[in-house]
Amino acid sequence: MHIATEKAVTGTVPPALILAAGEGHRLNGVNGDNPKPLTPVLGLTLLERAILSCKEVGVQEFYVVIGYRSHIIVPYLSALEQRLAVPIQPIENPNWREGNGSSALSAASYISCSFFLLMCDHLFDPAILRLLLTAGTNTTDCLLAVDCHTERVFDLDDATKVELDRDVITGIGKEKASFDAVDTGLFLCQPSLFDVLKVAGNRGQHSLSAGLVELIRSREFRAVTIGKRCWFDVDTPKSLGLAKRALLQSLSKPDEDGFVSRYLNRPVSRRISEILVHTPVNPNGISLLSFTVGIIGAAMFCPGGYIWTILAGMVIQLASIVDGCDGEVARLRFQSSKFGGWFDTILDRYGDTAIVAGVSYGYWLSHPYAAVWLGAIFALPGFIMASYTKKEFVIRYQSKPPGGLFGKLIKRDLRVFAIMLGAIVNMPYEIMLLVGLLSHAGIGWILLKGYRQKMVE
Amino acid sequence: MHIATEKAVTGTVPPALILAAGEGHRLNGVNGDNPKPLTPVLGLTLLERAILSCKEVGVQEFYVVIGYRSHIIVPYLSALEQRLAVPIQPIENPNWREGNGSSALSAASYISCSFFLLMCDHLFDPAILRLLLTAGTNTTDCLLAVDCHTERVFDLDDATKVELDRDVITGIGKEKASFDAVDTGLFLCQPSLFDVLKVAGNRGQHSLSAGLVELIRSREFRAVTIGKRCWFDVDTPKSLGLAKRALLQSLSKPDEDGFVSRYLNRPVSRRISEILVHTPVNPNGISLLSFTVGIIGAAMFCPGGYIWTILAGMVIQLASIVDGCDGEVARLRFQSSKFGGWFDTILDRYGDTAIVAGVSYGYWLSHPYAAVWLGAIFALPGFIMASYTKKEFVIRYQSKPPGGLFGKLIKRDLRVFAIMLGAIVNMPYEIMLLVGLLSHAGIGWILLKGYRQKMVE
Repeated sequence: MHIATEKAVTGTVPPALILAAGEGHRLNGVNGDNPKPLTPVLGLTLLERAILSCKEVGVQEFYVVIGYRSHIIVPYLSALEQRLAVPIQPIENPNWREGNGSSALSAASYISCSFFLLMCDHLFDPAILRLLLTAGTNTTDCLLAVDCHTERVFDLDDATKVELDRDVITGIGKEKASFDAVDTGLFLCQPSLFDVLKVAGNRGQHSLSAGLVELIRSREFRAVTIGKRCWFDVDTPKSLGLAKRALLQSLSKPDEDGFVSRYLNRPVSRRISEILVHTPVNPNGISLLSFTVGIIGAAMFCPGGYIWTILAGMVIQLASIVDGCDGEVARLRFQSSKFGGWFDTILDRYGDTAIVAGVSYGYWLSHPYAAVWLGAIFALPGFIMASYTKKEFVIRYQSKPPGGLFGKLIKRDLRVFAIMLGAIVNMPYEIMLLVGLLSHAGIGWILLKGYRQKMVE
Repeated sequence: MHIATEKAVTGTVPPALILAAGEGHRLNGVNGDNPKPLTPVLGLTLLERAILSCKEVGVQEFYVVIGYRSHIIVPYLSALEQRLAVPIQPIENPNWREGNGSSALSAASYISCSFFLLMCDHLFDPAILRLLLTAGTNTTDCLLAVDCHTERVFDLDDATKVELDRDVITGIGKEKASFDAVDTGLFLCQPSLFDVLKVAGNRGQHSLSAGLVELIRSREFRAVTIGKRCWFDVDTPKSLGLAKRALLQSLSKPDEDGFVSRYLNRPVSRRISEILVHTPVNPNGISLLSFTVGIIGAAMFCPGGYIWTILAGMVIQLASIVDGCDGEVARLRFQSSKFGGWFDTILDRYGDTAIVAGVSYGYWLSHPYAAVWLGAIFALPGFIMASYTKKEFVIRYQSKPPGGLFGKLIKRDLRVFAIMLGAIVNMPYEIMLLVGLLSHAGIGWILLKGYRQKMVE
């Protein structure tokens, strides 16, 4: 399953300035012959991830400061510009060795409005940019997204620390012994940032922090806390590995995943997605793949007999696992779409139909009664309508779907898993009927919730 | 099918002042011993219709001026207040014989904000009140809803005519030879109306029109045109009959109804609804009734044989016709609800399931092959998913569902009708398979539309 991500923030979204000029020597060796910005992370380079994360919240204009091995990055950026259909302006900073403040400053002549400032080696949840945008509507201060959960920051020693007076930033630097939060490297800045960078530069200080110290002096620098949202500074092979793992972990959907999804399907599908993300297959292709495997599994029930039945059970469970990969790959690649989620849903319903047909046919071979088929016709609409009923509840009452045990019981992951278990004990048909019965009960239960909702309206 | 009507306008909606003091002698004889406001029109009295129409757009406070036979209306209003759970303040006007201006004036001490003014003997589309509300947000003028399609006004001689200078009303009265529109009797007024009514009253003129002439003088009286929206002034037995017919006609849903609904089901279901609306059965009860009839029809396919098959076809068609009545009765009685529409949809899907089971069983008796049941399992999800797919399209792309021939072909009215025709030619199973195939094609077609929509996004 894959679901379209939250829509871009409305109104004009500021451009993004991405710093990608440094050498990042600590990653040498793990990223092949690539400069750091082109380090691949689960199918996309660091730079591409930074741009796509911004694009997701509606950024439509990009400035990328380059320096170290820029001759490799320039053609890459121009290819990226074409592929992503967004304007990406490369800005060469010949003095990149001086510090990242000098890199930011080299964009001064390009930007004359508020802008996002980010480091190309930071992976982050795009929701953090939305927090900055929201906080930025009522202020002309420079804003920095900070993480107050310092205990979860990997390599805290190397992190830039932030001292706070409420939301005003009163100190920033790597060496602070006492601090309130950690700098995530995500800013929403005003062009006045360039002025303070100039001031610091004139003093011979070319780091971003040196410029920010000027902002701190005038108390024009404020913090936006990110809560539990994720971000990673990818500096070392170890932090790269951790970031990958966290990215894969984030593919679970705690609110939506059923029992089986969470504890069985996801842990496996994540590993498959980790492979698939490096192939050219797209999410809709994965949906079709899962569907095809499901159809094959359903067909394997037809001959009847224990061996075929048990194999068929395994194959439909495999299809159910692969069914999670389309959404995972889509999210990893920023390819989620309305259509994709819908296509997957409809294929799932046809997959269910095939399973009902296969299981019933296999059972009918040894029980040649019309009742077997009537049972199939009884179970099938339960399978098909369960998810629709839930969805309609959400739409009609504009509230969360009824959760609870019943809500979890009528999910597809559990349905397929139950039939697979049924196959193992050579009772797939009986279990299918039982799951059908539960699905109808679930539909009735959701209807009842709707009826009660109506009463209190 | 019944669908929840548009939600009430947000924000504070003004109270309504309903004039119900006159004698209305021209209706004597057709409304039994009732005073005119209690004349029943398709299950509800004129007064109840006026109040419910206002309630539909969010009016939460009612003032009803009574005069003629008020001793009958007062207890009726207090019962209505309880039943509808809205405050209804009766206002006695002992001088009701003087004119409707004097009746309006008797509410002066009750109302100190803008208010809807309406006549209890007018039936109207609540959307007209919404037009007034929208037009009223930017003005403190008094607003009158007018109908420019004077050719459609029944008994134009008796109608109050309006002269316009753009949207400013420059003349009003029954006797005008030249006029631009007709007064619908629906106003959005300011308390200043009471002042002009006093002025006119002091001159001995106690009609509403006399007061309005004062407003016209100061050019504080404007018209809001109602387009093609419906309204009726119910004065005579003939106009009452016409209003009833128009109300029944308005139950069709030109945008939603399929071919069969429009030309076969609706004309019959309207007649059934006209009867049902006078019974205590509620819309959800009608949904259940239609469902039950459908299940009986489906079961009648089971014995097989031509006689049973043809009878079964008739019964499922009857169920399909009755299926329109729940929504019709709900709309006639202002009982439309989110739950009702949903409940009906789900029952329809179960009804389809029963038909597939019944038809297949009947066919299997003479064709005892597994393929018969596989055909049933093939057709069923087409029936169930067709409407969901359409609905999802609307939700995901926030645009109208794909219309066209395919859109019409996968509707339930046509589905049931086709199977009924199939029963008449003794081929219900074959036709069911064909309709199933068409439904799957329709689902594919809607998906394709979604895919194209995604492309142009």
